[in-house]
Amino acid sequence: MPSGEDDLIARYFRPLATHAGALGLIDDAAFLSAGTDDLVVTTDAVVEGVHFLADDPPDTVARKALRVNLSDLAAKGAEPAGFLLTLALPHQEERWLASFAQALGEDTVAFSCPLLGGDTVSTSGPAMISITAFGRVPKGRMVRRDGMKAGDVVAVTGTIGDAALGLALLQGRLLPTAFSDLVSRDWLARRYRVPQPRNSVSALVREYANAAMDVSDGLAGDVTKLCKASGVSADIRLADVPLSPAARQAVEVGAADLTTLIAGGDDYEVLCAVPENRFTDFEKAVTGAGASVTAIGIARSSVSFKPRFIDSDGSLVTLERFSYSHF
Amino acid sequence: MPSGEDDLIARYFRPLATHAGALGLIDDAAFLSAGTDDLVVTTDAVVEGVHFLADDPPDTVARKALRVNLSDLAAKGAEPAGFLLTLALPHQEERWLASFAQALGEDTVAFSCPLLGGDTVSTSGPAMISITAFGRVPKGRMVRRDGMKAGDVVAVTGTIGDAALGLALLQGRLLPTAFSDLVSRDWLARRYRVPQPRNSVSALVREYANAAMDVSDGLAGDVTKLCKASGVSADIRLADVPLSPAARQAVEVGAADLTTLIAGGDDYEVLCAVPENRFTDFEKAVTGAGASVTAIGIARSSVSFKPRFIDSDGSLVTLERFSYSHF
Repeated sequence: MPSGEDDLIARYFRPLATHAGALGLIDDAAFLSAGTDDLVVTTDAVVEGVHFLADDPPDTVARKALRVNLSDLAAKGAEPAGFLLTLALPHQEERWLASFAQALGEDTVAFSCPLLGGDTVSTSGPAMISITAFGRVPKGRMVRRDGMKAGDVVAVTGTIGDAALGLALLQGRLLPTAFSDLVSRDWLARRYRVPQPRNSVSALVREYANAAMDVSDGLAGDVTKLCKASGVSADIRLADVPLSPAARQAVEVGAADLTTLIAGGDDYEVLCAVPENRFTDFEKAVTGAGASVTAIGIARSSVSFKPRFIDSDGSLVTLERFSYSHF
Repeated sequence: MPSGEDDLIARYFRPLATHAGALGLIDDAAFLSAGTDDLVVTTDAVVEGVHFLADDPPDTVARKALRVNLSDLAAKGAEPAGFLLTLALPHQEERWLASFAQALGEDTVAFSCPLLGGDTVSTSGPAMISITAFGRVPKGRMVRRDGMKAGDVVAVTGTIGDAALGLALLQGRLLPTAFSDLVSRDWLARRYRVPQPRNSVSALVREYANAAMDVSDGLAGDVTKLCKASGVSADIRLADVPLSPAARQAVEVGAADLTTLIAGGDDYEVLCAVPENRFTDFEKAVTGAGASVTAIGIARSSVSFKPRFIDSDGSLVTLERFSYSHF
């Protein structure tokens, strides 16, 4: 019998399975009831060497694997309800797993998203963690990509480009000397390794946004997807894209330029379209929830369902790259 | 923008996303409503070189990836409601994908289980397909592992050991000369590559069984898990374990022995515990649904929650191996 697999699950993951429907992870399946709510389902996988680095600490890998999914729930206006975890590992290293499970457990509590079940498989390749997350919204209220209307304010939470810079630093593609202090470098690396999904504003996204999605593959590409799904265009003001002090410094010293930052991935912020007359209220409410949101453009009718990117002098900017692509 | 990824999804997978909540796969998430039902959720991944072979045809890989999950739903007494698909591929080969998607599409129709969404990622390692499947049961009626009671008939659908023999043949560990005809060999290989999940009897499992699980890691190990979860023991009569003509022949010519077959994986049959006074009715109903079920033992009270395996002469058999283990 696969005692290794069973023992591993029992020791490290059973404590995370606090939902009654998880049945203590002893069953083949879990159950959930949604009542009159809709259940929102989403799945995102992270692969070693692609979404995290081989020497990333296991606790950050665990948090990232869960949070990229929580970010999808936040953007859909859904409250977390639980998740399934599939671990494909090349070997079973107890210390790695212990640290992974510990951090995952902390996040399940912090985000009220218990482990419901999962699968463990061996692989001869890079480690991969695939998570399916469940969320709840009142019936018919999932915030979709296809609801943006001409005139809507296009806005994004938090700051953009930090994770792309963090990855560049970790991979040695960007020299730390470009930055004046160690704090910025560590903070940027952290932004790559541990996203901060905006679940604290999910109810506000549901209340105010006509459309939303999370920014995971690059802001430029994700705005393009939002336009295409909604059948409208948008004018995006590059100077208004929110940057952290560290990212702003990187741009100022010429270590990176804005067009690269908006085509980098791993932001895990919420991109949304909010009716113009409600945007000020939305902004206030988001601030009240401890997050930030910045207007970066305006949706407009157009025969081409593509955004335009506009420089501070009003000129159109042609982007060479829009986002990270797996292929 | 990741046009490769988007185009690929649109071309091959959008036609499979027939559920309204899938939103044509253009969104980050899908939604499902369960109403008064419970939603059963389960996830199983298949890895190249572990669950399927590198040269297995893509259509069989697709069917296996979905069916191992459908098998879990069948054993839990749940009707399929949809699934999420995560594809981790080392490269994007259009012909492989076209064939994969075509077969997957046929199975979504055959099993009434539409594609709801998913994720595609690149990997430098072996291909991996991770699926999360959703099913519906009336509230509180998911058939669990922990309900087997002393006196229950322990039974299994279909036949056991075919897939393990098929894999041994495909890997050259078992010589085809051990079998008298080509038909058996092809049939056994097919049993490994394309499981036949017992979704046609899921409602009967729900109606009759006190406990159930699918047999995926080896009958012996899975009976052991059922006993442990339920807190009872069971006497399993080895001579009653249902074998196909091909598997019986393999045992008769000495190419394999029964203890190996019941420790092999990939059967994807339903193992269940049914009250003795209802077993005949259950058996009839299963036959009526076009499947078969065979009583292989009886549950009994015991201080050790472990099954005993009993030979045709009444002697206890000690197994060296119970199931396939990933670690």
